[in-house]
Amino acid sequence: MDCSILISKLPDLPWITDVENLVPFSKDYTEDLQFLPDLAIAPTSADDIAKILKICNQFNIPVTTRGAGTGLSGAALPVAGGVVVSTEKLDKIIQIDTLNMQATVETGVVNAHLKEAVAAYGLSYPPDPASFGSCSIGGNIAHGAGGPRAVKYGITKDYILNLEVVLPSGEIIWTGSNTLKNSTGFNLTQLMIGSEGMLGIITKAVVKLVPLPTQELLLLAAFDSLTQCAKAVSAVLQSSVKPAAIELMETSGIEISMKATQTSFPLVKGATCYLLFSFDGFQGDDLFTEIEKIYPILDELGAIDIMPSPNSDTANDWWKVRRAIGETVKQKSIYKEEDTVVPRYSLPELLSEVKRIGEKYGFESVCYGHAGDGNLHVNILKNELSDDYWNHEVPKGIREIFECCKKLGGTISGEHGIGYSQKTYLDVVFTPTHFQLMKGIKSVFDPNGILNPGKWIR
Amino acid sequence: MDCSILISKLPDLPWITDVENLVPFSKDYTEDLQFLPDLAIAPTSADDIAKILKICNQFNIPVTTRGAGTGLSGAALPVAGGVVVSTEKLDKIIQIDTLNMQATVETGVVNAHLKEAVAAYGLSYPPDPASFGSCSIGGNIAHGAGGPRAVKYGITKDYILNLEVVLPSGEIIWTGSNTLKNSTGFNLTQLMIGSEGMLGIITKAVVKLVPLPTQELLLLAAFDSLTQCAKAVSAVLQSSVKPAAIELMETSGIEISMKATQTSFPLVKGATCYLLFSFDGFQGDDLFTEIEKIYPILDELGAIDIMPSPNSDTANDWWKVRRAIGETVKQKSIYKEEDTVVPRYSLPELLSEVKRIGEKYGFESVCYGHAGDGNLHVNILKNELSDDYWNHEVPKGIREIFECCKKLGGTISGEHGIGYSQKTYLDVVFTPTHFQLMKGIKSVFDPNGILNPGKWIR
Repeated sequence: MDCSILISKLPDLPWITDVENLVPFSKDYTEDLQFLPDLAIAPTSADDIAKILKICNQFNIPVTTRGAGTGLSGAALPVAGGVVVSTEKLDKIIQIDTLNMQATVETGVVNAHLKEAVAAYGLSYPPDPASFGSCSIGGNIAHGAGGPRAVKYGITKDYILNLEVVLPSGEIIWTGSNTLKNSTGFNLTQLMIGSEGMLGIITKAVVKLVPLPTQELLLLAAFDSLTQCAKAVSAVLQSSVKPAAIELMETSGIEISMKATQTSFPLVKGATCYLLFSFDGFQGDDLFTEIEKIYPILDELGAIDIMPSPNSDTANDWWKVRRAIGETVKQKSIYKEEDTVVPRYSLPELLSEVKRIGEKYGFESVCYGHAGDGNLHVNILKNELSDDYWNHEVPKGIREIFECCKKLGGTISGEHGIGYSQKTYLDVVFTPTHFQLMKGIKSVFDPNGILNPGKWIR
Repeated sequence: MDCSILISKLPDLPWITDVENLVPFSKDYTEDLQFLPDLAIAPTSADDIAKILKICNQFNIPVTTRGAGTGLSGAALPVAGGVVVSTEKLDKIIQIDTLNMQATVETGVVNAHLKEAVAAYGLSYPPDPASFGSCSIGGNIAHGAGGPRAVKYGITKDYILNLEVVLPSGEIIWTGSNTLKNSTGFNLTQLMIGSEGMLGIITKAVVKLVPLPTQELLLLAAFDSLTQCAKAVSAVLQSSVKPAAIELMETSGIEISMKATQTSFPLVKGATCYLLFSFDGFQGDDLFTEIEKIYPILDELGAIDIMPSPNSDTANDWWKVRRAIGETVKQKSIYKEEDTVVPRYSLPELLSEVKRIGEKYGFESVCYGHAGDGNLHVNILKNELSDDYWNHEVPKGIREIFECCKKLGGTISGEHGIGYSQKTYLDVVFTPTHFQLMKGIKSVFDPNGILNPGKWIR
């Protein structure tokens, strides 16, 4: 695609044109996909983005917005060519308003950088995707990102108050107000969250902050039955105890992660799965009181071993093993990562279906994820499967997994989005009317269809 | 408007046609507004609503959806005539899923009825608008309703997982999935919340539940300075303490409510305003530990008196006085109720501007509301003002109040919606682009504009 009009109309912007420097914009963290853009740029202001979009809109040049490139559904891949607009240089934390417990940030700010900056004031920005060390706030917003601590704190959508958005027309709007409540017109802020760069380019966000907990305590429970394990999750959440996170791990995933990261983890003989509970707060004693309450619940539901983290080094090891499962499992083989989500009590049924479908199609899967939210990451490994089988038969199995999610009241993505890699499965949960409404909404924001074409909107 | 086609095409439905029985559908709780519909009906199923909408869509008959009629912005008023569709008979609680802590309800269910039903299982549906004893879940959703306990628990939008919606075409869709997370396409669920009957008729909702707290403790703090009062709110929320509610009351409002309800309240000499803190939990001792932590904060910020509720009778009285302020102030005079919202630390600035503007225009205002959320209800009383002045000059003052909200990062409605009564002020916060986007979204759902015409979408 000829994008030279952009360069000729905006000659002073720092365009990236040579293939070598365009390559980093051709991939994200999704499988083994790669699409080279014709042009890329990392603007330093919303005004520059407005100028770019206006020209793209006039000349029908595809625009793919890219945050930090850590996405897992290929939403940032320029599958239709054109220009990639990276938000990486929109990296300023504009204001930390301690009195209102809000921060205003440019959307290229890395999640961990925001966390660090507000921690200096005793505040926390809770959403914590596994990639929080490198992912951007804008990418989190565009994907509706979650993370382990969602059980207590909620997800990205629960922390976004107001967004600055550049529309294809070049107009810049704020979607709402800097308030905790807003019943003024349709909720454009929530509409932008999870919109995957298809409605506008999000350039600033006003986010809600909470007091930073100073203490954390982990509790590990080992089970020999997935069903009992999932029952334990429901039982704990029905009690008066409020864990920050409840993570589910299959033993196979833990073993891979332990080996790859050379980190110890207290494996229990006979255990097939584990729950990792995190409790946080402001007084260590309170946390011990909390976990004492859930011992009897876990006991009654057949936990074969229960142990608190004896110290913070151990806690860090346990988190390290948990967080590394995704990465290390993927190092074993080419993979497809599915982001299934169901009402949490249906997790064992989903898991047993995943295994049954895996046997039927002959693929290995390693499962782990956010049990408190019913969000199970299913990593399907290619191993020795042929390319043809991997590309044509395995997707049929994945479709069956998603049909199971739907039957259980769930859906096909809890926190990774649809982007490019999941678009073929969307008809499992969407009727033609859903597609029509969403396509209509897209047309209102982006009548010429320049924003992120080739993704899930047909 | 001739709606006889509806009756002739659907003769078996229980149409309400005579004026006497139509009158109850002509009003809600907004000021002194009244608009008689041509026809009304309270269907008992989404299927019947689908049949009705299909015909209205075909013959361009205006449809105004009505919940329990407790709205404060006139969204349920049939200002363009046509048919009122009441959800009052969609009153079934379909399922209480204790394992997933979710309930599926028809949207005519009264908020308090849902609360009672789930309380039997030790669960709570937290959103608690002042009218929770009579308002409907559907009305709460349509307005993005809040309530005092939003400080700890959030608002309606934080508890809605999935919605069944009847579109003007007669199609019935579910907007999402029954999961705590969902990154699958645009967030239609959140788009429906606060949409005031303009995008579809919401017939079922899957809502999130939480464990029901068993203990409550109130703490009352009296101040002689609004500025110090608002600073105290910020300081408490920055600490490790988490109140469920922080309500602000002017002494004048308390006095009116005490007198009208014949309820005692510990007025403190010299106090101009009060903060009512509510703490809830599962163990009474914990709550006393909590409030002990905030005494020094309130002391330091100049509270002239601080007192916990000695027993539950007293606590009930304090809540009664607080809840009755709105109603009893309105009994004094014809009024206009404004639902201002700003970042919470800006409340004193907003309040002093409200008073300054009131002096300038010569109107009395009584203010109270949700200090923890920066949501201040401003009741403006007509008293002895002439009709002409009330209708033409006072709105100029209201506009100035809203301009102040905008300047402070806030907006013109936090939880009541825009509906009919606030529509003339919307241009204070919306640019033509906002209107254009929202009008576009409406056209996608309701191409013929039959749903709630005459409201804020022009």
